[in-house]
Amino acid sequence: MPSNNNSSLSQQTQSNLVQVNGTWTRQTEQSQPAEGKLSDAKIYENKSEHGVSWTVVSPIVFTYRVIQCRNILDPRNDTLLWGHIGDEDLKGTISNSKPVKRFVVIDDTVNQLYGPQVTHYFAAREVVYKILPLPTTEENKCMELVTKILEEVHKFSIDRRSEPIIAIGGGVCLDVVGLAASLYRRRTPYIRVPTTFLSYIDASVGAKTGVNFAGGKNKLGSYVPPVATFLDRSFFQTLPLRQISNGMAEMLKMALMKHRGLFELLEAEGRMLLQSKLQSCESSNNSEQEDSATASTRIAIETMLEELAPNLWEDDLDRLVDFGHLISPELEMRVLPALLHGEAVNIDMSLMVYVAHQRGLLTAEEKDRIIQCMLGLELPVWHQDCSLDLVQKSLRERLKHSAGSLRMPLPTGLGQAEIFHDMIEDNILGQAYQKWTDELASSGNK
Amino acid sequence: MPSNNNSSLSQQTQSNLVQVNGTWTRQTEQSQPAEGKLSDAKIYENKSEHGVSWTVVSPIVFTYRVIQCRNILDPRNDTLLWGHIGDEDLKGTISNSKPVKRFVVIDDTVNQLYGPQVTHYFAAREVVYKILPLPTTEENKCMELVTKILEEVHKFSIDRRSEPIIAIGGGVCLDVVGLAASLYRRRTPYIRVPTTFLSYIDASVGAKTGVNFAGGKNKLGSYVPPVATFLDRSFFQTLPLRQISNGMAEMLKMALMKHRGLFELLEAEGRMLLQSKLQSCESSNNSEQEDSATASTRIAIETMLEELAPNLWEDDLDRLVDFGHLISPELEMRVLPALLHGEAVNIDMSLMVYVAHQRGLLTAEEKDRIIQCMLGLELPVWHQDCSLDLVQKSLRERLKHSAGSLRMPLPTGLGQAEIFHDMIEDNILGQAYQKWTDELASSGNK
Ligand SMILES: NC(=O)c1ccc[n+]([C@@H]2O[C@H](COP(=O)([O-])OP(=O)(O)OC[C@H]3O[C@@H](n4cnc5c(N)ncnc54)[C@H](O)[C@@H]3O)[C@@H](O)[C@H]2O)c1
Ligand SMILES: NC(=O)c1ccc[n+]([C@@H]2O[C@H](COP(=O)([O-])OP(=O)(O)OC[C@H]3O[C@@H](n4cnc5c(N)ncnc54)[C@H](O)[C@@H]3O)[C@@H](O)[C@H]2O)c1
Ligand SMILES: [Zn+2]
Ligand SMILES: [Zn+2]
Repeated sequence: MPSNNNSSLSQQTQSNLVQVNGTWTRQTEQSQPAEGKLSDAKIYENKSEHGVSWTVVSPIVFTYRVIQCRNILDPRNDTLLWGHIGDEDLKGTISNSKPVKRFVVIDDTVNQLYGPQVTHYFAAREVVYKILPLPTTEENKCMELVTKILEEVHKFSIDRRSEPIIAIGGGVCLDVVGLAASLYRRRTPYIRVPTTFLSYIDASVGAKTGVNFAGGKNKLGSYVPPVATFLDRSFFQTLPLRQISNGMAEMLKMALMKHRGLFELLEAEGRMLLQSKLQSCESSNNSEQEDSATASTRIAIETMLEELAPNLWEDDLDRLVDFGHLISPELEMRVLPALLHGEAVNIDMSLMVYVAHQRGLLTAEEKDRIIQCMLGLELPVWHQDCSLDLVQKSLRERLKHSAGSLRMPLPTGLGQAEIFHDMIEDNILGQAYQKWTDELASSGNK
Repeated sequence: MPSNNNSSLSQQTQSNLVQVNGTWTRQTEQSQPAEGKLSDAKIYENKSEHGVSWTVVSPIVFTYRVIQCRNILDPRNDTLLWGHIGDEDLKGTISNSKPVKRFVVIDDTVNQLYGPQVTHYFAAREVVYKILPLPTTEENKCMELVTKILEEVHKFSIDRRSEPIIAIGGGVCLDVVGLAASLYRRRTPYIRVPTTFLSYIDASVGAKTGVNFAGGKNKLGSYVPPVATFLDRSFFQTLPLRQISNGMAEMLKMALMKHRGLFELLEAEGRMLLQSKLQSCESSNNSEQEDSATASTRIAIETMLEELAPNLWEDDLDRLVDFGHLISPELEMRVLPALLHGEAVNIDMSLMVYVAHQRGLLTAEEKDRIIQCMLGLELPVWHQDCSLDLVQKSLRERLKHSAGSLRMPLPTGLGQAEIFHDMIEDNILGQAYQKWTDELASSGNK
């Protein structure tokens, strides 16, 4: 596979790797096959007059669980302690007599609301635990918070193999803890327990961790998935409505990009879902029929997993999930803390819907239905600081960092999309921007 | 593959992922096969009365090149600029008209010795470059250095896809730059140019990056390989002999663990290799026969690659390359800066040779040959601060962090080894330690 580097006269040998008695050896097509464990990794050797070169091709497999559950803080529920491991492994662990230890990082606000329950859970389960509450806000989302966590983890001392760090909070908390865990001893397992709707359907599903740096959003981070994410919607009960709308933006993103059914559900029941904070009504708990809160969150997660799983390290730059994320990072950081992440994303999506319409990808009716749906979800569709200048600057930055192509996802109908590679012509962008402002500037007053 | 999490009544569905028109969709065995790009990732869905859970299994493939070359700082040599990419890719890059940019971090001492040549290289190639010299010593190997690099990289502004960060220096420099690069935008490619013998055969070959933290060696880091490592032995000419001995320890490690031929070469010619600083004599440059400097470095790298490539993220805890690294991290940090990394490793190996002998794995003659070889390489074989207490503490720490098993590699002959799982019995360890001290304490005076 790998090409010759230096000279066309060089010879290339491909080796597999076989482990015999604890020692790895190379095995070429010519060599006698040895009995042992075969690795998926390969080493290609090239010899030329300049010397030897080797190319190593080595796959790493990431496995993680995303688990919906109820009553996660009920001491009778095993999930928080053991949900990250499978049944068979579980047996091994339980027979292990060593006391169970857990290090927990929790968002300050969440701690005020749920701290007593969290403490009670671990106390009732006789876990040796340390709970570290932190002000995990967007303004604090930086390396210093990561260092703080690392110092405390180090003091507490955990087994890097079997004692995952648990993060309970919104996306900021999950991202910061994820980064700390991925750095500690080069990788310590961690668990995500999202308590905001936005982090439930987005930050919880993929591998990304991060902090802001030098005024740039998530400029530092890693791609290390949690061992598990535990999803419990009951945390949403204490969220302000604005935080629910915030998450609705990411859900709407998935609907617009790839699921017409989800779009229609949001169009019809979005406002109700918002008002009920995505809680299922008790009666529907037992019925066979999935209620709309359950259905919409399930679809949002499934569509998100479909897009993230094949591209965990974002090696493929063509990503539908980037919809709403081309201009919003710049806007979000510029007006911080005026706009929440999902709000900035929605303003970006709203403008892009106008661009798609201007390009003839969406009919006027489709465009209007989308904007109406956004308004129904109480999301901002326009912002005064989202100037044409900022839009152009963001797109140029995007172009610079995505290997010479814009890779802009745009809706091409309701629930379907394509990725466009060329820079938008200035006049199309200008016209779309003008129409967007003319039609929606007044809605921005709310 | 993944087990059911909650209930034996749950049903599991396995999905492959297929990309059609830019959109990923799940495809089960039952569903109509769609035409498109198939991913290696899989999603397993489990439905039970408690809700839905998903298990994501997603492989990431790391590819990197390790290239031996000469005259890397000669402007006629393409390697430093383009060695990380293959021939075909190269053509694409060269036709690209944008000016070439490179950010270079260089160890302060190396900069004093080779700075003018490095500057001349980039100037002659008309590269837009920034060279950042840093005091990358073991004492400074910490997060602050990483942050410093990140700030400068950010100021300089590079294309995260096509402009790898270049690190030129010893293992500290390579480790620190590797960590900074792996954090910047969640992953920026980087290149390793080792200038010490130790980093040439060890730090350059794998994926590990790291810094010290809270008094612990390499407590923070990541597993992200460079895009390429360029190996040029001519840098060794300016190394003090002690630094050559230092690298010899890691080479001897590979010899003892898995290559009798390399051990015999070191036994016979180790002292000569040390004195000549592993430079090939000019005459042998053209001859067909590989000289011993070339052969020994090649074997060291090949055996190292064999062990690292199948286990890039160290998921398998049974590692031959850990020989000499069970006690040495504690010793090295405790006496810092008295012992170099390889020296601490050698003291650890020396004691372990006595343990292996005490266990009947090595004959007295084999033990003595190994110790003689170490002394010939001018490596310390004993140290007063390596107390029995420190040894026991280190082994207990090891036990704690490797899933309940010691996983101790020990030689079982010259050039062969096995991994032992049980804790060493106190009396064996005590006797070995005593004999080690009796026989070698006086050699520690040098
Ligand atoms: N890693 C990823 O893939 C990914 C994806 C999307 C977003 N993100 C990141 O997530 C962040 C946004 O996440 P967020 O919207 O959750 O913000 P957040 O973490 O700042 O939480 C929002 C607010 O809600 C409070 N809160 C949390 N749970 C609560 C509860 N149950 N009841 C009452 N209040 C509660 C928090 O204290 C905070 O004030 C951004 O930094 C974004 O970059 C990451
Ligand atoms: N990532 C890995 O897999 C890995 C493997 C082994 C070691 N390491 C790390 O590498 C570090 C040790 O590396 P090291 O031994 O190269 O130490 P080092 O980087 O401290 O370099 C040793 C000294 O040599 C000087 N120097 C470097 N090149 C020179 C040259 N050509 N001429 C003259 N002087 C020169 C440096 O300035 C420094 O003072 C340790 O921190 C260890 O943890 C990492
Ligand atoms: Zn987002
Ligand atoms: Zn080492």
